[in-house]
Parts: sequence; C-alpha cells; structure tokens
Amino acid sequence: MSDLAAQPVKQKTEHLPPFPLNQWYVAALSRELKDEPVARMMLGNPIVLFRNADGEVAALEDRCCHRALPLSCGTLEPDGLRCGYHGMLYNSQGQCTEIPGQEKIPRRARVKAYPVKEQDDIVWIWFGEDANEPPAFEPPRYSPHRSDQYFFDGGVFHYQAPYQLIHDNLLDLSHLGYVHLKTIGGNAKVHMNAQMDVSSDEKSVHVVRHMLDSEPPPTYTAAYPFKGRVDRWQEIEFHISHLRIWTGAVDAGSEPIDNPSRGGFHMRGFHGITPETETTSHYFWTIASNPTENQEEVMKKVVDQTAYTFEEDKEVIEAQYRNMIDFPGEPMIDIHVDAAPNRARRIIEHLRTRSGK
Amino acid sequence: MSDLAAQPVKQKTEHLPPFPLNQWYVAALSRELKDEPVARMMLGNPIVLFRNADGEVAALEDRCCHRALPLSCGTLEPDGLRCGYHGMLYNSQGQCTEIPGQEKIPRRARVKAYPVKEQDDIVWIWFGEDANEPPAFEPPRYSPHRSDQYFFDGGVFHYQAPYQLIHDNLLDLSHLGYVHLKTIGGNAKVHMNAQMDVSSDEKSVHVVRHMLDSEPPPTYTAAYPFKGRVDRWQEIEFHISHLRIWTGAVDAGSEPIDNPSRGGFHMRGFHGITPETETTSHYFWTIASNPTENQEEVMKKVVDQTAYTFEEDKEVIEAQYRNMIDFPGEPMIDIHVDAAPNRARRIIEHLRTRSGK
Amino acid sequence: MSDLAAQPVKQKTEHLPPFPLNQWYVAALSRELKDEPVARMMLGNPIVLFRNADGEVAALEDRCCHRALPLSCGTLEPDGLRCGYHGMLYNSQGQCTEIPGQEKIPRRARVKAYPVKEQDDIVWIWFGEDANEPPAFEPPRYSPHRSDQYFFDGGVFHYQAPYQLIHDNLLDLSHLGYVHLKTIGGNAKVHMNAQMDVSSDEKSVHVVRHMLDSEPPPTYTAAYPFKGRVDRWQEIEFHISHLRIWTGAVDAGSEPIDNPSRGGFHMRGFHGITPETETTSHYFWTIASNPTENQEEVMKKVVDQTAYTFEEDKEVIEAQYRNMIDFPGEPMIDIHVDAAPNRARRIIEHLRTRSGK
Repeated sequence: MSDLAAQPVKQKTEHLPPFPLNQWYVAALSRELKDEPVARMMLGNPIVLFRNADGEVAALEDRCCHRALPLSCGTLEPDGLRCGYHGMLYNSQGQCTEIPGQEKIPRRARVKAYPVKEQDDIVWIWFGEDANEPPAFEPPRYSPHRSDQYFFDGGVFHYQAPYQLIHDNLLDLSHLGYVHLKTIGGNAKVHMNAQMDVSSDEKSVHVVRHMLDSEPPPTYTAAYPFKGRVDRWQEIEFHISHLRIWTGAVDAGSEPIDNPSRGGFHMRGFHGITPETETTSHYFWTIASNPTENQEEVMKKVVDQTAYTFEEDKEVIEAQYRNMIDFPGEPMIDIHVDAAPNRARRIIEHLRTRSGK
Repeated sequence: MSDLAAQPVKQKTEHLPPFPLNQWYVAALSRELKDEPVARMMLGNPIVLFRNADGEVAALEDRCCHRALPLSCGTLEPDGLRCGYHGMLYNSQGQCTEIPGQEKIPRRARVKAYPVKEQDDIVWIWFGEDANEPPAFEPPRYSPHRSDQYFFDGGVFHYQAPYQLIHDNLLDLSHLGYVHLKTIGGNAKVHMNAQMDVSSDEKSVHVVRHMLDSEPPPTYTAAYPFKGRVDRWQEIEFHISHLRIWTGAVDAGSEPIDNPSRGGFHMRGFHGITPETETTSHYFWTIASNPTENQEEVMKKVVDQTAYTFEEDKEVIEAQYRNMIDFPGEPMIDIHVDAAPNRARRIIEHLRTRSGK
Repeated sequence: MSDLAAQPVKQKTEHLPPFPLNQWYVAALSRELKDEPVARMMLGNPIVLFRNADGEVAALEDRCCHRALPLSCGTLEPDGLRCGYHGMLYNSQGQCTEIPGQEKIPRRARVKAYPVKEQDDIVWIWFGEDANEPPAFEPPRYSPHRSDQYFFDGGVFHYQAPYQLIHDNLLDLSHLGYVHLKTIGGNAKVHMNAQMDVSSDEKSVHVVRHMLDSEPPPTYTAAYPFKGRVDRWQEIEFHISHLRIWTGAVDAGSEPIDNPSRGGFHMRGFHGITPETETTSHYFWTIASNPTENQEEVMKKVVDQTAYTFEEDKEVIEAQYRNMIDFPGEPMIDIHVDAAPNRARRIIEHLRTRSGK
C-alpha cells in the first residue's frame, strides 16, 4: 500500500524532462488537417501542422523567424505556408524559400521541423532529445482504423490537467460505477469486484477484466440486441503515448470471451494522450464498433455516448487537478484499483529518467 | 493622525498566521445546507459542508484521501458522503467507512474534520491552531434569529477583497452619505457630522451614532409610517468574525433612543465575515426587522434594499482593493471616520500575533 | 543583417525605466472627456482624467489618499472631483479641499497631479523623471485637426502588446500586402518592392515610399473618383510618442507626388501610442481626409475601413506578442523591411538610457 507512485504533481526528479522523449505522440487525427494550418502546442512546443500540396503532413515550429508571428496565422499555398505578416514562405522542411521584396534569403531564415508520420488516420509526431537524430523506430499501427469489420469516429478534447491523470483514469475502469452511471457504467459493485489481471513490461501495461453474467450497461443495449445478461470484457493496453481500450460482451455463457475471434458487440477505443504542457493535455480519441443492424444509428449512439462519457471523465479529472493544486504536497493513499495506474507511472518515470541522461 | 494602523495590505507581521485562529467563523447560513454537499474555502482551507442523515452539519477537508477529487463532487447517502470517483464513503468525522471492492480500510484513509455548531440559523466553524484541541468556548448566540418580534432574511456574497476591508466599511457608516445615496444613505453632511461614541475592549469595538431630527432615508420611509423627521440610531458591535449593526428610528422627539426597549422601526443586521483566502472573503448577512403593517411587502422591500446596498458596498470595496494592488505600499492618511476601524484592526493584529506564538 | 535591434521583449538595459521619460504622451482624444472622470493607466501609473468647471483637463493619481478608492469612481462637482467613498474633494492640482465632517485638512491630504495640455483635439500628458520639474518643452501641434481642408474622426484601441510592436507595424507598411488584403492593401509585390527612402535624426524617423502606376486599393476607390491606375505615396514620421502617416494618391502621371501642395486623395493618420504597462498599450488614432463629393458617406467609409484595418493589425500584433511570450529569448532575423523600425527602436533605447541617468 505504498503511495510513492501516487504523487502526480511533485516528482522527485524535477530536473529531468517532464515528459518521456524519443517517442511518437499523437499530433492530430487525419481528419483535422484540411486546407487550413492547425496550431497546437505539444510537450511545451508551439507547433503548426499543415498538409503540403502533395497531401503530406508537415509540422513546424509555429513562429516566423522574422518577427515571431505564429505561422498558423498564415495561409497555405502550393509551395508551402506563407506568413500572414510580411509574406515569408516556408516549405515542409521549415526552410524559408521566399522573402517578398528581398533577393537574398539568409541561411538562418528557417524554423525547426518535426518528424511526422501519418498512418491509419492518425498523425504521429516524434519528440527526440536530439533534434538532429531521426526517429529511432516507426510509430505504431492501429488496425481497427483500417479494418472492414469496424466503423469508427472520434474527436479531440483539451484538458486542464496533466496527462498522467488521464492515464490513471483510463487504466482504472472501476470508476465506471461512480462516474458513468448514465452510460457505460452502472453496477458499481460488479465493476469494483471484477476479476482483474494486470501485467506489464518496460513499455506497456496490460489489464484484463472479465465481468461474467452481468447486466449490460445502457450504451451496450442501445447498440446491440443482447438477449439478457452478458459476459463482458475490458482489455486495456497502456503505451507511453496512447492506450487501447477494447471492450465488449457476448450473451452470458454463449462462448469463451478470451478467444481473440470472439463474436458479440465490440467497442475498440483508441486514446492518444499528448501533453500540451506540464499541466494541460490533448486527448485524441476514436471509437470503433461492429453493429450488425441499424449500423448508422447504432454508430451515432456509440459515438455520442462515448463523447458524453469522456465529458464526464474530463469534469472529474479537471476537478481532481484543481484540488491537487489547492492541496499541494498532500499524500495520497493507494487502494486496490491503483495497481495498473501505478505501473504506468513507474514506466513514465523510468523513461523520463532515461531521457535526462 | 497616524497611519500605522491603516496599512491593510502589507502587515509588519508577515510570518504570523494571516487570520486570528482559535475562533468561530461563520461557515454558512443554515438554509444553504439542504440535500447537496456545499464546497467552500475558508481561511485558505477547502472544506465540504453537508448535513448527515440526522440533519447534523459536518465539515470535512474537501479532498478524497485516495486521488484528491473534491468530496463536494460526491453524493450524500444515509451513511455519509460518497466520493464521485471510486466511491469511497466518509462519515461526519472524516473517517472512510467503505472502499468498494476492498475489504481492509487503511487507518490513514480519513480526512480532516472541523468542529462545527449550528445555532440560531447560523452554522459556525472553529479554526484552531492545534487541530487536536477542541474549541475553547461556545460560538455566540444571535437573538434576532429566534425572536418572535422579528422577521429576517439574508444571503451570501463573495468578495474579491480581503476581509478587513469589509470590517472597515461596516464600522464606518459615514460612507452612507456617499455610497448609498439611493437607499439607506442621503444626507451626507448629517452622516458625517453625527454624534459618535466609540469604545472597545480586547475583543470588540462598539460604535454608537445618533442622528437626531434628521430626514428618514428612502428604505425607512418605504418600510415604516414615520410622521416626518426622525431620531435615528446606529449601533455597531464589531467582533472578530462578525458584526452586529442595529439601526432604527423613532419619530423625532417622541422617546429617548438610548432605551433598549425603544419602539419605532428597527433593522438588525448580522454580518459574518469569513476570509476565504488572504485576498478574498465570504460575507454572510441577514437583516431582521419589525414592520407593523404590510409585513410581507415591507420585509421584501427591506431585504431587497439591503441586498442592493451591499452590492454598492461590494463594488466600492473591490475597486478599492484592486487599486491597493495597483499602488502597492502607498501610505494612507487617516481621517475622523477611521477611529473605530483602526481599533478593529488593532484587535485583529493582536490576535494574529497571539495565534502565532 | 544584425538582429541586435530586433529583441523587443528582453532589453539589455533592464535596470532602466521601461519607457522614455521627459516626454509628452497622448492621454486622450478631447472627445473622450465629457462629464465623467476617465480612468486610464499610462506608463504604469493609474491616472484619472477629468475636465474641471472651466473645461480644463486635469490628470491626477487615481487613488484617494485616504483609503485608496480610485478617484475615477467619484463624481465631478463644480469645485473638483469628489471621492465616492467618504466624500473627500480634490481640485485640479490634486489638493484635497474638503473632508466632510472634519475641519482640519492634513497637509499630506493630496494626490499627485500630472502636467496636461489639450490642443488640436488631443490631450497630452507629461511624464518626467522628476515630478517637481515642469515640462521642458511644449507638446506638438497637429494641423489636420484644425484645418478647413480636412474632415477627421478616430478612436481608441487597447492592445495586449507592448508599444514598440505597434511602432514596428506602423513604420513598415510593407505588411499592407499580407495583412490588409481587404482594405488598403492588396498588390503585395508592389508594396514589397516600393521605392523607399528612410532617414532619421535623434528623435524621429522619416519614411517615404512611392508606388507609381499602381492599382488603387479598395478604400481609395471607395472614397475618390480615380480614373484608373494611380501614383501613390506613403509618408511616415515616427516621433517618440506618436506617428503621422500621411498617404494618398493622384491619377497616375497627372502631377508630381513629392509636391507638398499635391492634389488627389489624402488620408492623414495620427497615431498616438501610449504604453499602459510594459506589456500593454493604448492606441489613439484619427484619420483625416479630403473627399470632394459625397463627403459624409465617403468619410464614413474611410473611417470604418481604417478602424477595420486597425482591427486586423491588432489581431496580428497581439498574436505576435503572445508568441513572443511562448518562445522567450528566441532570436529574430532582420529583413529589408526592418530598416525604419530598427531606427525607431534605437531612438527609444537611447532615450531610455538617458532617462535612467
């Protein structure tokens, strides 16, 4: 019952980078990048995201090197992004390629460019310790975004809370019983007493919870024709920059639920958590599902109720963080639900330490 | 004409507690506590107030000891207050009595409880230097709240200003002539030149002002059938955490106004001033009165005009405080009206010094 | 291509006064001062401006010397400005002349008065290093405000940005091509490649730009019956506390445009830039013009479009400043358009240094 791992505000390693570096983080959902530049601060860095004429995504320091106007105030042109003050033009590599009214372009007329990669409808951005080193590995794939089996939709939330409080929330689904009574929750005791298996390695945490013979929650019955009680699973994978929460249910007793090819109703959540600053966060989410009938209507329900659920979480997490500020340095006690969140915190702490070497 | 006592922002004793401790402060008007927990920061402490199943008021540290969610985000149950994140249940003593899904409750699973006492429609809270010491004395009674002779009503204001600026305002009613022209004021010269008697002891200041043969102000004539000019009194009692301002009038020359059983029209104001932080305050007020006819209508007028008057004061005091921030450390000069406010400041300063020993 | 002069946030001379002293700054447009006191912080000093019974403008420290209420919360009376708390009365010299209810007025019962002078519909205020020294020279005259030839109108903007960023903007009109496409801009290349002559002395910078045979911008054609292409001029005079931007055009080739008595369409802009604080500014502007027909309608267009243009500038400059805060200490590179702004910065820096001696 140690609470060493439960101090989300004051870290013992304050001289280290506040976030794990040498990692891919989610910069955007693909759908966000259309014909306007998008400004987004990530890991404390103001960045402008845009698509070039070939449709490829670029990420630059969001600051004209001349007089510091955000480049995101500018306009997209076939040859790049043009600053909205004096018209300096930048290409996807951050090089200034035109200074209107001036022939010579100084060598220093450039801004930092960040490695980005778009795949499976997600735009990933690399934050490395050394800006001159290329990414050491590829960003992860996410199969439900390119599977025929699933429909998906999603959105982006901005949180007035540090990223690790969102990890805590997603890794501990026992809060469904108290926070999400109206949607995916209910059955508080069932959630709290579910079988739970937690495992982890150096970079990830896995949680599997089975709730056999339980009442299906409102979102489930709205989306799928269950006969009555269900066997329900929640599988959570924590990675440094994102979580996968794959949940679902089959009619109680109809088939084993630890079979990867199990049937029934599935909800596959992707949760990209990207620190904006040390105290604020971006939360990119999608939900994929496999309704068998009334697909459009069911998907709309699933997405609406998921968004509603995340609003409930946001309210709780932001209230929690405001209170942590009002009670600085107060100890927190651990309870049984903290096993997985604490492992995730240890991974983050370990990676921060390594980044600082 | 010293201005030593008139430095409300920078105190010479900055290492001392900013507020007198070992005192009862007003936590709420009874009517505020119904079937929802109430969050209120007092003397810098975030506190949740609630009634238990027996109707008794409890005051706890507003922070679940698990992951710091404000307990005021939770729900009231017959056995106490349940946290809205993971369902931990707390009783009125701050002890956690249930952790859903976990059998053993750690000894440390508790939050601080504050002594409270509800009487005469006021909820008092004790702030002591030593959290383990019980209150050293009983909170004060307030007779107009339980007298057949009076109707009363009231409200709560939140001030963006330190508590002592509100003391200053209430102890110096000469401002009625300039701030409250439209309600209880008017007759600036009469107010400024009123007979005034100021006395004090270690814990209180008393001010008595008589304005004989004066024009009754708008609120008075709206509430009572005066024949013409009036003999008017203002009696102010300052105590550490609250003031009593008992005012009234009789027809001019009709009877002595220093007789406690005097007739005429009475307005008995209760003013609980509780620091929220060093720079913000709660202001709990009631006004009791004794209209003899059209009672409902007259009381509504008295209460509405009192609330309106307090809005005027709030505007002035908050503007004053903003300006004190804009002009840090500037000296203030004293004038004749400051006799009573300066005595109150000396009492507060003395009690802060004693609290810090 | 040095960027020494281009560091608007961090000055190397941080111990010096942040603004040039011993200067007249614009305090108000005359039309702003009617029958209410006006509160305005200038160079970090909260000041109340008002007209006395003779119509003369006074400027006092905006703080009653008794209990610090802003005097701007008070009321104007024939004998001065009366505080809205306890009724102390101040004359135009800042002397308290009445304390209601008190016979003796302490010598210290006064507030600081600032030298002001109203002329040509502008109220100027002197900020000197030594408050006891009278102004060393007269404020400047501004002829278009008292000429029969011109109509004029104007307004006041509040900027969340330091004053020197506004100087930069006004001294470099090449931004018209990118920021003001919809009004006075367009023709980006023409603006960037305009003939430009920059000269300066110890206290002013002069910029003359000629754009011969160019397309008239939308505001111009809306205001004046040009036949087709125009010969256009922009003449900018930078002074410590204000700029004059006199622009205009004649039909292309019809007459020399460097002749002071040239005809055609004129827009004479006055731009008073008064620091509110080190990071915020007041911007007083008027635009004078000489339409020959449909005068009322044309003036309205000129004024509306000028205001719209300044809104566009405000948006850019405030975004620029927010970004300078997000990227503290980052170098800026200079381009050809910075010649005049950099000279102005050197003048300001020099005057700050002299003020600090």
